[in-house]
Amino acid sequence: MPTITRDDVKVPADVLPEAREEYINNYLKATRGTGRLMLFACDQKMEHLNGDFYGEGIDPSDNDPEHLFQIGSQGVCGVLAGQRGLIARYAPDYPEINYLIKMNSKTNLVKTEQDDPYSPQLHDFEAVLAMKEAGCNIVGVGYTIYLGSEYESTMLSEAGELIAEAHAAGLIVVLWIYPRGKAVADEKAPELIAGAAGAAVSLGADFVKVNPPKATDDKTSAENLAIASQAAGRTGLVCAGGSKADVGEFLQHLHDQIHIGGACGNATGRNIHMRSLDEAVRLTQAISAITLSDYSVEDALQVFNTDLEYVLRESFFEYVLRESF
Amino acid sequence: MPTITRDDVKVPADVLPEAREEYINNYLKATRGTGRLMLFACDQKMEHLNGDFYGEGIDPSDNDPEHLFQIGSQGVCGVLAGQRGLIARYAPDYPEINYLIKMNSKTNLVKTEQDDPYSPQLHDFEAVLAMKEAGCNIVGVGYTIYLGSEYESTMLSEAGELIAEAHAAGLIVVLWIYPRGKAVADEKAPELIAGAAGAAVSLGADFVKVNPPKATDDKTSAENLAIASQAAGRTGLVCAGGSKADVGEFLQHLHDQIHIGGACGNATGRNIHMRSLDEAVRLTQAISAITLSDYSVEDALQVFNTDLEYVLRESFFEYVLRESF
Amino acid sequence: MPTITRDDVKVPADVLPEAREEYINNYLKATRGTGRLMLFACDQKMEHLNGDFYGEGIDPSDNDPEHLFQIGSQGVCGVLAGQRGLIARYAPDYPEINYLIKMNSKTNLVKTEQDDPYSPQLHDFEAVLAMKEAGCNIVGVGYTIYLGSEYESTMLSEAGELIAEAHAAGLIVVLWIYPRGKAVADEKAPELIAGAAGAAVSLGADFVKVNPPKATDDKTSAENLAIASQAAGRTGLVCAGGSKADVGEFLQHLHDQIHIGGACGNATGRNIHMRSLDEAVRLTQAISAITLSDYSVEDALQVFNTDLEYVLRESFFEYVLRESF
Amino acid sequence: MPTITRDDVKVPADVLPEAREEYINNYLKATRGTGRLMLFACDQKMEHLNGDFYGEGIDPSDNDPEHLFQIGSQGVCGVLAGQRGLIARYAPDYPEINYLIKMNSKTNLVKTEQDDPYSPQLHDFEAVLAMKEAGCNIVGVGYTIYLGSEYESTMLSEAGELIAEAHAAGLIVVLWIYPRGKAVADEKAPELIAGAAGAAVSLGADFVKVNPPKATDDKTSAENLAIASQAAGRTGLVCAGGSKADVGEFLQHLHDQIHIGGACGNATGRNIHMRSLDEAVRLTQAISAITLSDYSVEDALQVFNTDLEYVLRESFFEYVLRESF
Amino acid sequence: MPTITRDDVKVPADVLPEAREEYINNYLKATRGTGRLMLFACDQKMEHLNGDFYGEGIDPSDNDPEHLFQIGSQGVCGVLAGQRGLIARYAPDYPEINYLIKMNSKTNLVKTEQDDPYSPQLHDFEAVLAMKEAGCNIVGVGYTIYLGSEYESTMLSEAGELIAEAHAAGLIVVLWIYPRGKAVADEKAPELIAGAAGAAVSLGADFVKVNPPKATDDKTSAENLAIASQAAGRTGLVCAGGSKADVGEFLQHLHDQIHIGGACGNATGRNIHMRSLDEAVRLTQAISAITLSDYSVEDALQVFNTDLEYVLRESFFEYVLRESF
Repeated sequence: MPTITRDDVKVPADVLPEAREEYINNYLKATRGTGRLMLFACDQKMEHLNGDFYGEGIDPSDNDPEHLFQIGSQGVCGVLAGQRGLIARYAPDYPEINYLIKMNSKTNLVKTEQDDPYSPQLHDFEAVLAMKEAGCNIVGVGYTIYLGSEYESTMLSEAGELIAEAHAAGLIVVLWIYPRGKAVADEKAPELIAGAAGAAVSLGADFVKVNPPKATDDKTSAENLAIASQAAGRTGLVCAGGSKADVGEFLQHLHDQIHIGGACGNATGRNIHMRSLDEAVRLTQAISAITLSDYSVEDALQVFNTDLEYVLRESFFEYVLRESF
Repeated sequence: MPTITRDDVKVPADVLPEAREEYINNYLKATRGTGRLMLFACDQKMEHLNGDFYGEGIDPSDNDPEHLFQIGSQGVCGVLAGQRGLIARYAPDYPEINYLIKMNSKTNLVKTEQDDPYSPQLHDFEAVLAMKEAGCNIVGVGYTIYLGSEYESTMLSEAGELIAEAHAAGLIVVLWIYPRGKAVADEKAPELIAGAAGAAVSLGADFVKVNPPKATDDKTSAENLAIASQAAGRTGLVCAGGSKADVGEFLQHLHDQIHIGGACGNATGRNIHMRSLDEAVRLTQAISAITLSDYSVEDALQVFNTDLEYVLRESFFEYVLRESF
Repeated sequence: MPTITRDDVKVPADVLPEAREEYINNYLKATRGTGRLMLFACDQKMEHLNGDFYGEGIDPSDNDPEHLFQIGSQGVCGVLAGQRGLIARYAPDYPEINYLIKMNSKTNLVKTEQDDPYSPQLHDFEAVLAMKEAGCNIVGVGYTIYLGSEYESTMLSEAGELIAEAHAAGLIVVLWIYPRGKAVADEKAPELIAGAAGAAVSLGADFVKVNPPKATDDKTSAENLAIASQAAGRTGLVCAGGSKADVGEFLQHLHDQIHIGGACGNATGRNIHMRSLDEAVRLTQAISAITLSDYSVEDALQVFNTDLEYVLRESFFEYVLRESF
Repeated sequence: MPTITRDDVKVPADVLPEAREEYINNYLKATRGTGRLMLFACDQKMEHLNGDFYGEGIDPSDNDPEHLFQIGSQGVCGVLAGQRGLIARYAPDYPEINYLIKMNSKTNLVKTEQDDPYSPQLHDFEAVLAMKEAGCNIVGVGYTIYLGSEYESTMLSEAGELIAEAHAAGLIVVLWIYPRGKAVADEKAPELIAGAAGAAVSLGADFVKVNPPKATDDKTSAENLAIASQAAGRTGLVCAGGSKADVGEFLQHLHDQIHIGGACGNATGRNIHMRSLDEAVRLTQAISAITLSDYSVEDALQVFNTDLEYVLRESFFEYVLRESF
Repeated sequence: MPTITRDDVKVPADVLPEAREEYINNYLKATRGTGRLMLFACDQKMEHLNGDFYGEGIDPSDNDPEHLFQIGSQGVCGVLAGQRGLIARYAPDYPEINYLIKMNSKTNLVKTEQDDPYSPQLHDFEAVLAMKEAGCNIVGVGYTIYLGSEYESTMLSEAGELIAEAHAAGLIVVLWIYPRGKAVADEKAPELIAGAAGAAVSLGADFVKVNPPKATDDKTSAENLAIASQAAGRTGLVCAGGSKADVGEFLQHLHDQIHIGGACGNATGRNIHMRSLDEAVRLTQAISAITLSDYSVEDALQVFNTDLEYVLRESFFEYVLRESF
């Protein structure tokens, strides 16, 4: 089981000296003291509108946004990632969750054929800091970049500035990077996924969420992912979970991504929240069992099926107790 | 009859501690102590130019903008929503009205075929705060987003920042969200209305004004609205009133929207101000009787027809008296 | 003869308390204590390049920009409106003129067929305040909006912010609003002129300059103007003077605009400055005789023909003396 | 021989009181105490890339940018105009030259057929002030506007703000104004040159550099220039020198521009720096003999041919000595 | 062997007096006390995505970004140039390297046929200063301009402002200037390379990186480069190294660029980092032997082949010891 100490955290040079302890705290909180990230993605009410939350194959409870916070609170995840506004409305009742503010968002109405994608930053970074200082448990921020879009430049620029600001204040940063636009023929080509990873470390992100690369003649998806993970260097690479899938298969993919592909975590949304609260909670436990505690796929599946109890909290509290601050 | 106390108000996490009481006050004032919103929309002199104010079927008194403020003063509404400039010119003579500053506006001259819609923010938020601090009774701000427009990104960004600023200062925020643009085939498709609701809660709005969804094979408009209302979560959903209609039919729709569709209020403009002062005042009373006091359609119609007296003020003053501030 | 006192001035709610007396002073100075505005438009050297200042039918003296200031100084007008830079170069020698800074301007080189019109703000508002504080007699600012242009949004936004800034500092604001662009079929359609008036009051302007609406089957131009004047509410509507015309006809139109059309002033440029200094001075007196002193057309024409002496100054000094400041 | 005193300088109203003496100093330095401007244009390394500095008919010494400063130092000119960066690199070794910072620049790679011209401001005004305060002998700033370009609005806006900032700090401003773009059929049409002059005074420039207007059926170029000079009012008009030409012919044109066309100076670049240092120095003396000392063409030609010694310095030092500052 | 003293450094006039010693230090550190620049380009993970770091002919170690820092640490270079984020993640473990922050970057996904190139600034300059003040050994900043792009104006403007800011704070600036875009027929035409050099000195850069010009009928590439070097004046010109090539040939080119072409350094990336650590380290030594120590090609090749030991450090420490600061 991966565990890291405060000294293991590689604090980047753009974290200002006075924010150093804050950065280490946030990094350890987000990774639950493991260095790996289990990110629960809750930004799709904007990104996919209501299509991910209501309809056939989706549990009715998912239509109410509070469902996301109930999962975040009762399940096990490193961070719950959502827009600032969404978190602002529910965080007072769920103060124990680690929040990651997704800074930019777009809807899926305008398709790439009509216009290349641009996801605008929804507010300045100061708004996040103010909310954090008012007591909200925010540990980091996130930003989506569509590499290869005709608006790539604006997103690179917003993300670059955001990372500087967030690190200066001791927050961690997760980038979502997807190659997309008229110039991108194959969004899952391994060299583009590795390119996205390299772009992330060039920008200085702590973690980057990418889509799993496609398999090629000579390599599986996980093997191709390993190249991207290495290209990401000190930026931890995590994979998007994609749409709702068979749990066993999903956990196997996750396990491969970490143990073959070198991923240091996962980012899953729809696959979790489309389920009933109980099932969703158990899925977060199963995912975290693999991501944060190095369980086997079989054991994790038992966690999901409630045949095995999963308790994470120890390592988390351990690091908190280890230092007095 | 819905009544809420100060403790019932869910204060979002982006309201700064020092603005907490101010937010609660504004929320209670805007909802008249009920948690429901009766919004009198007075921004059409820009949005529709003079077409809503002069011509056949419109009372001549409507051509003078003061008509709006006379209705707001003598009738019953939660907030009068209009552009900052309009309110600045009349508020000194109508200090008792709750004002909501509509931050952005466009005219209807450029049609979607020529260019996708963008409604620009007319001034910064500081201008609102200064006016409020100078004594104007402003309780909140509003902003229109055209989801699916090629300019969606600019509006999301302006709205996101506005909500952060307004909440920080204790003002409430109402979003008007309409799917519109070349990418939008059916502006009233239920899934788009529910999508608009989800976008609103993602941005952290207090209320969102949407168009009523169309009826589908299996569901009435109000039943489809219920899905959107749930998708909006802690953001209260209110429906646009649309153009001038038969009062009985209008009140029935309103009643259905609230009691079947889960709406927590209404936003009505033209249907009110196109009438003579007396008739308009009585219509605001009838609307408020349903929205704020849970009257039946029949009773509300009697209010409109002056067969029944409607007095709201109690619950409003009640909450003011309950706390000393 | 219209005369107003300090108490008659409707101070809008966005004038900050500490700027209240300054606003009243400026309003009274600009309207010469009458509530009506005689605006001498001197911004065409940018708008029309040199075409209004040199050529057939234009007095040679008009080619020198100082001509404008000689007229402003020796004639009678409420404000001389021009770009900040122009006024900066001549105001030291003509300190007694009331200046209104026209904040935006464009040339007439790019036609609407090539691109919809946009007139950019030439500098920030601070530059006006600094000049005023350095002693220049500035009473207000102006801004042109082309409603219906594809760049309408930028102009609405600049104008909206400008009004907030100017009122906060006690300056009055005049908007020039012209429907223009590919979306506008008939720039002088009465409903568009009335729409422009409504947009002006929505933005909170003190005065709006519009083109006279065209006559329709049932109404003269002045009768159509009356609808626009009412739609403007507390924003005073003034009409553009248009190009050089017969003086008698011009004064009759002006008289009709005020007494039938409800206009509260006029805005005239070319018709004045294309004449010799002497003739131009007399025309400002004749215009002011109608606008500021309710002369008949016949009497005003006698003023122009020097058969009648016109003295305005009394009411102006009266209000200054009435209060000590 | 033109000579002016400190009291002759018309200080515009946007020069802040505390910058008044600075403005007068800069005006007198730039005009060498004459009110006329001899501007040595050194901004073409960006505008024309290396085409003006290397090749057939160009002295080899011109390829080294230091050539420009050697001419500026050993020759006679009012100001050396170049980009801030260029001046920053050489000014420490040539501290005696009066520098005018050309604020914006573009290359000549993108032609008008591909896109209308826009010359971007290269840095904010603060950067100029800081350099001046650090000891660099900067007397003013310059900016190019392409009237009639589709980007005219941006350039008008940048220039307008620049003039406000520069005057507030006591610097003089020279505008380069050229009608250019798809909308401009004839860049040297007299009415456009006069229009450019009017635009300059509307913006409040101290000097405007225009191209000489073409001759028409009834008027020579210089006679047409006279109309533009008058239209410029208190903004001094100077003519561009154009490409390398016969010296006698060039000096005759210059003399005509001043004595027939009413120009108050000249702006010459290529014609000077394409020559050897010795020849270039003598040409600046010949030009200044006409511009600053009212020499005849014949005498100026003798200066160029070294048959006549030209000494300017007197009037310059005179005004410096006249006042103690 | 080139060596310079503190007094030899030409400090430009935009270096503020209080930053003068800092600028001299940074200039001497970057040039290792020689006035020549050996720049190790490490910004391609964004510019070329992962194509330069993984694949046939590339050493596997190059896929890990730490490879770059190992080379920078164990090899000999003046500065390691990379994006702020990349440097932030590794600099704490490689504090001895001189870093140059590459301020802007784009990917190579959108080709010129689709859109002209624009490389956006990734964050403001303050972010660099803060990182430097927090202890990171940053000596300068870099910026890429695509001359002739339709977005040239934005890049000129960002670069111009950056140079002002960086010099004010005592940092050196390297510009990468490449003519590119639909308007550019031949990116390596000698007159365009010389034009780029002239643009660089106009902007005030300390160094400019250009592509080697192509050979022409009458001149070799190096001879054409000599014209560009002279056109760059006091801005030192360095050549891009291009893709991986035969070492002997590469070193010969470099030697020619310096001794025939007047270059004062080199900028090499791929050619170095695509090799194994050991080979890459030796190549940096061979390059530096030529650039910083005037070795012959033969001797430098011996350094690469480990037949000759190369020690630079002397001159570097010499200047540090010469002054006490």
